Amino acid sequence: MPSADRFPSAQVLNIQEELFLIDCGEATQNRLFEHRTHWNRITYILISHMHGDHVFGLPGLITTFCHLGRQEPLILVGPEGLEEFLNASIQYSHSHLTFEIKYIKVNHLNSECIFDDGELVIQTIPLNHRVPTVGYLFKVNMITRKLNLDKMESLSIPVHEFKKITQGEDIADKEGTVYHAEDLSTVESWHCSYAYCSDTKYNEAIIPLIDQVDVLYHETTYLNELADKAEATGHATAYQAATLALKARVGALVTGHYSSRYKSLYPLLEECKTIFENTILGKEGLKIDIAELKKTSKLKT
Amino acid sequence: MPSADRFPSAQVLNIQEELFLIDCGEATQNRLFEHRTHWNRITYILISHMHGDHVFGLPGLITTFCHLGRQEPLILVGPEGLEEFLNASIQYSHSHLTFEIKYIKVNHLNSECIFDDGELVIQTIPLNHRVPTVGYLFKVNMITRKLNLDKMESLSIPVHEFKKITQGEDIADKEGTVYHAEDLSTVESWHCSYAYCSDTKYNEAIIPLIDQVDVLYHETTYLNELADKAEATGHATAYQAATLALKARVGALVTGHYSSRYKSLYPLLEECKTIFENTILGKEGLKIDIAELKKTSKLKT
Repeated sequence: MPSADRFPSAQVLNIQEELFLIDCGEATQNRLFEHRTHWNRITYILISHMHGDHVFGLPGLITTFCHLGRQEPLILVGPEGLEEFLNASIQYSHSHLTFEIKYIKVNHLNSECIFDDGELVIQTIPLNHRVPTVGYLFKVNMITRKLNLDKMESLSIPVHEFKKITQGEDIADKEGTVYHAEDLSTVESWHCSYAYCSDTKYNEAIIPLIDQVDVLYHETTYLNELADKAEATGHATAYQAATLALKARVGALVTGHYSSRYKSLYPLLEECKTIFENTILGKEGLKIDIAELKKTSKLKT
Repeated sequence: MPSADRFPSAQVLNIQEELFLIDCGEATQNRLFEHRTHWNRITYILISHMHGDHVFGLPGLITTFCHLGRQEPLILVGPEGLEEFLNASIQYSHSHLTFEIKYIKVNHLNSECIFDDGELVIQTIPLNHRVPTVGYLFKVNMITRKLNLDKMESLSIPVHEFKKITQGEDIADKEGTVYHAEDLSTVESWHCSYAYCSDTKYNEAIIPLIDQVDVLYHETTYLNELADKAEATGHATAYQAATLALKARVGALVTGHYSSRYKSLYPLLEECKTIFENTILGKEGLKIDIAELKKTSKLKT
């Protein structure tokens, strides 16, 4: 249901300045504009399901990309119907794509790996809604080298060689003396994970997939007093989302996708907190720095 | 181009509490909600052309009508592609219509009458844009009877007979005495007209159609210093819209459809006013009471 100040689903996940847009409800492009999002850094758009509040912003966003003269290819991930819907919107609105769209069609019956470059893995999470629906799980495992600047200065290593060392390469000076990257830097690994689960009934089958993720976004459409309505409409209650967060031992739970009947969202937050203390109230414009949350030990993982 | 505070095209025309939605850019449903528009009173949606900033709000609005359980039929007027676009959106978003949609497909080459019940006439206005585009002209000619309350009181006419007299019917009392409606009331006729012209180049061919309309909405995408750009993109400048308003002897001109390059809209208004003084700056949420404007003689017609 529309509202003047609550917007349909859309999230941007920033992984090392590459942006992944997850769901694209109506007027998502206005929100991206409002938050000064770098359009061209959006390389993936991942759609959970084809209900309008998750996808009706896509035609406008794509045609705006065209007006901006985008040339970078875009990867669109989603269930059946996504490509057909977007093609119809482009065709009948007399739009002309200025860039290539690659589609990845996902199924909602079992988890699939849709991206894996060794540092980032993206997997689908089969959800249980009224229509084919998937969640998305992002796992980042990166190895970075932290330069030992004191040692490098004492050895007079020139600045233009820093990048090579960061990448783990050995270097040599004019006299042929070799300096090993492992002597000039220390390896640091960091990992972060995020799971997006909307829209869905309470479903314990996904626990192994989302086990110990740093942050779980899980829909909390209703308070638990409306558990019957949640069951009938394929949604979850705040209590159920928190129960799942607890059982899956996640770092933090973010709520969202609220029924328009709730003028205040705090009862939904409070209901979660009775089960799972580390719950964050999802709301318009919320920004979460997962790495920072982990550093400051606000996450238990 | 999206913006945080300027919205794509959508206007609501209220004729005796029947609502006509003209164009339906993204998130129009949120604006309707914000302005507490009575959803069920929207009987017609008229689309000027199929560019996304005029039509991408339609799937969301129609599916919201379904969520609200609408049963009243809806008439959708617009150029080729409208029915196909909406059908695709409904199909791929797994939506199910709860009411009937009747389509009226219009052509952009000559003016057509799409409604005429004697009191209200709706005609298309052929426009000159990059794709098939029509404007819409609404002419209201209503005859109402104003009751002579003093006379009715002196004759002890019961209140339940007032409606009949308003409708021009004669009445009789228990003794068989007949009272003629024309003796108890005076006939008043009122007429109002409104023309919606967006998107279009400057086009004098439409002057006979919009001659002396009370209010003309005409797009003013650019200042006249960008007349070449207007010509190339199928748009009009403020100067051109005002010139058309002057030549068509309209009562008032309302501006709109501004290029996102203009942070302030006043230069566009000022440019119009150098040609046509009675210009109203179109902006988000603007409400105009055409009948009231006429009464207070702010319109010269």
